[in-house]
Amino acid sequence: MYKKLKEAVCQANIELQRQRLIIYSWGNVSGIDREKGIVAIKPSGVKYDELTPKQIVVLDLDGKVLEGDMNPSSDTPTHLELYRKFKSIGGVTHTHSTYATIWAQACMGIPCFGTTAADYFYGEIPVTDVMDEKAIKKDYELNTGKAIVKRFKGMDPMQMPAVLVANHGPFTWGKDPDSAVESAVVLEQVAMMALGTITINPNPFPISDILLDKHYLRKHGKNAYYGQKKVKGKKNG
Amino acid sequence: MYKKLKEAVCQANIELQRQRLIIYSWGNVSGIDREKGIVAIKPSGVKYDELTPKQIVVLDLDGKVLEGDMNPSSDTPTHLELYRKFKSIGGVTHTHSTYATIWAQACMGIPCFGTTAADYFYGEIPVTDVMDEKAIKKDYELNTGKAIVKRFKGMDPMQMPAVLVANHGPFTWGKDPDSAVESAVVLEQVAMMALGTITINPNPFPISDILLDKHYLRKHGKNAYYGQKKVKGKKNG
Amino acid sequence: MYKKLKEAVCQANIELQRQRLIIYSWGNVSGIDREKGIVAIKPSGVKYDELTPKQIVVLDLDGKVLEGDMNPSSDTPTHLELYRKFKSIGGVTHTHSTYATIWAQACMGIPCFGTTAADYFYGEIPVTDVMDEKAIKKDYELNTGKAIVKRFKGMDPMQMPAVLVANHGPFTWGKDPDSAVESAVVLEQVAMMALGTITINPNPFPISDILLDKHYLRKHGKNAYYGQKKVKGKKNG
Amino acid sequence: MYKKLKEAVCQANIELQRQRLIIYSWGNVSGIDREKGIVAIKPSGVKYDELTPKQIVVLDLDGKVLEGDMNPSSDTPTHLELYRKFKSIGGVTHTHSTYATIWAQACMGIPCFGTTAADYFYGEIPVTDVMDEKAIKKDYELNTGKAIVKRFKGMDPMQMPAVLVANHGPFTWGKDPDSAVESAVVLEQVAMMALGTITINPNPFPISDILLDKHYLRKHGKNAYYGQKKVKGKKNG
Repeated sequence: MYKKLKEAVCQANIELQRQRLIIYSWGNVSGIDREKGIVAIKPSGVKYDELTPKQIVVLDLDGKVLEGDMNPSSDTPTHLELYRKFKSIGGVTHTHSTYATIWAQACMGIPCFGTTAADYFYGEIPVTDVMDEKAIKKDYELNTGKAIVKRFKGMDPMQMPAVLVANHGPFTWGKDPDSAVESAVVLEQVAMMALGTITINPNPFPISDILLDKHYLRKHGKNAYYGQKKVKGKKNG
Repeated sequence: MYKKLKEAVCQANIELQRQRLIIYSWGNVSGIDREKGIVAIKPSGVKYDELTPKQIVVLDLDGKVLEGDMNPSSDTPTHLELYRKFKSIGGVTHTHSTYATIWAQACMGIPCFGTTAADYFYGEIPVTDVMDEKAIKKDYELNTGKAIVKRFKGMDPMQMPAVLVANHGPFTWGKDPDSAVESAVVLEQVAMMALGTITINPNPFPISDILLDKHYLRKHGKNAYYGQKKVKGKKNG
Repeated sequence: MYKKLKEAVCQANIELQRQRLIIYSWGNVSGIDREKGIVAIKPSGVKYDELTPKQIVVLDLDGKVLEGDMNPSSDTPTHLELYRKFKSIGGVTHTHSTYATIWAQACMGIPCFGTTAADYFYGEIPVTDVMDEKAIKKDYELNTGKAIVKRFKGMDPMQMPAVLVANHGPFTWGKDPDSAVESAVVLEQVAMMALGTITINPNPFPISDILLDKHYLRKHGKNAYYGQKKVKGKKNG
Repeated sequence: MYKKLKEAVCQANIELQRQRLIIYSWGNVSGIDREKGIVAIKPSGVKYDELTPKQIVVLDLDGKVLEGDMNPSSDTPTHLELYRKFKSIGGVTHTHSTYATIWAQACMGIPCFGTTAADYFYGEIPVTDVMDEKAIKKDYELNTGKAIVKRFKGMDPMQMPAVLVANHGPFTWGKDPDSAVESAVVLEQVAMMALGTITINPNPFPISDILLDKHYLRKHGKNAYYGQKKVKGKKNG
């Protein structure tokens, strides 16, 4: 019944590993069918090499399992909270990718030091607050989602498709599971280059708002002119 | 007679190389059969590409060779000391993996900066004392084991399956040779991310005990809920 | 009609990815036929895995498309400006390669710390000025080219086949598309080693002019003696 | 006539690339037949992918070409000086491997921070003096060899099979071309770990002489007990 979404989510999980963002089973991708109101997600602790569409778990937005024999990812309550509050997103990833996790462990947001970041992230990539005792002890994964949502107050999640959870690691998203994986790949590259930048220049400064606007809006929004979108209706290659 | 253990130890050695923790022949994995009281270990100086189960050396816990034509790893006395004193462990590795060795060379333990570490290591990964002249000059490899055991006084080795030997490199362990290799892989990743963390934030702080408990105990101990353990008796994938 | 140049440009683009300087579609290579006055360049946003010679776009030096159904790279006006002003160059690349981009983000030129750099780049690899609001808002890509040309006033672009655009990333060039790719590969290696050098030695100094001359001129110019050029007319292997 | 040596030298060059120490044609391995007094070396500027034993150039110790149609490596005078003065060595390499070159560019020797280094290098890996104008302008490559020899005054080159040429990069050696390549591989790893060590601990200290002796002499010299050397005459695997 949910075959197409399960296949898309399985493929996106495998792509996440192919991009070298995963060690063992640390990470997960989910996707949502907004019409049906259902979410498909990787089962917990399963290795990527062995993952099949059949193993993908399907739940409703309240976390009730609709299909699948295995436990869903232990991070499922975080994903569900993001889908409930960020209405425009269609896919979510969680990884412990090396450089994004380094910034998360340092509890620091990643300043926008260059156009590579500006092409995807409209400003500094935010880090959540450190979670307090109460939020950790009960409903920890749900509260992780709430900490992210709180941090995004007043922001458009589609203009900033990544967050660093303090002491933990990144979550990313996009219009579908594939886009969420792309956000994770770019985040890792941006995080690596930002670390190098502050190593060379201990007093770094982010790029100007004008350059940020130029690059972000050149690829996103109604006046975008990057890629093949406006040529004879061809698909962007 | 010891065929099964020799095969498991051979496979674990090969996996150690496959995970890119090994240069040339620097490293070794051993395993123990607690019932028979025998240990199987890689022969000394043999390249991983050429390793076969037949070459694995079998010894008793006093170091007497029971089977095998080759010299056991020169680190054998360290492994044996760990098996004698850490009754719960079933496999041991030694590597010179890059980032774990960097911390060992700096003679510094690796603080628990994030949940990646907390999922496997219950606190700061310890470093031994620098060994004194006497300990180096005679029975060096045995004394390396004793330095590790001394450092673990009051600690449960199964909650901290790794140690850094000062000026040298890491030893790791687990319930069997495969788990010991997994500890070595995760240690290397944790060591790399910890180096990045203190590069960004020169005054880093470890995660709270509450978050450490949450993550470590979510995967270990009787209330663990990560993975597939509690679902219909299925094997964790 | 432009088959040969399109094939050379396609191959050079693919080589850029094979050298691991590219993530997704971030980057492009172009080539020029000086006799015909035409430039061939990668289409915008197309993935390297899917690139074919047929997709390469051909333009004149004013940017008028002569052949090709797709949008040319959004960086085309930068390439054209370089071809118009640097008469001796035959190929241009743009990448966001990790270490070159790190220096560009730090808005710092790369000092010549060793002979590896001196073999290819005759002095410090320059960084452009940060572009002002006006230059960004209108004709941004053309103005990027102008910022590069301005920075090269009084310099011979063939002796310095690379530049860092501040807050952005590198452009490189050479006598043809293949040489431009080689410049990009070497730039990345030089940028990585320069970062390491200042990490070890916070007060680094560039090499002497005498050593710079020795190495640069040993490989370039009429008294070069590196390689096979002067032996029995054989091709340098 | 020199077939065997040429094949050994060709294989060692290819291994150098397989170990990822080479970009393009930057590097070379040579070997010597002490009885015949002849040296075989890679031709200049030839790519490793295309290298065949037939292309290897054979010279006497004065640099007179005895066999081969191509120019020998431009670094040949350095190799020859090392063979003339270091009577015990049988193979030499030169690379621009990333981390060894970083230390050479910083004009700093690599302190012995751990047993990984101590297993191969008996103390701090030395850096030459910066060469003066006269030494660079005439007979540069020969003078590079002389700067190395000068730096090794009072040292046994077989106990320290590597040197960093200031502002340039490493040369390594060993009893034959394969051993020289092994020295180059280990040097690169040691250089990478030393950089990490001083990043974590800005006031690092080298290991004690006692630990250095223990590790170096455990693998080298008449009381060595590492590997399979003393077991039933078997070859060390």
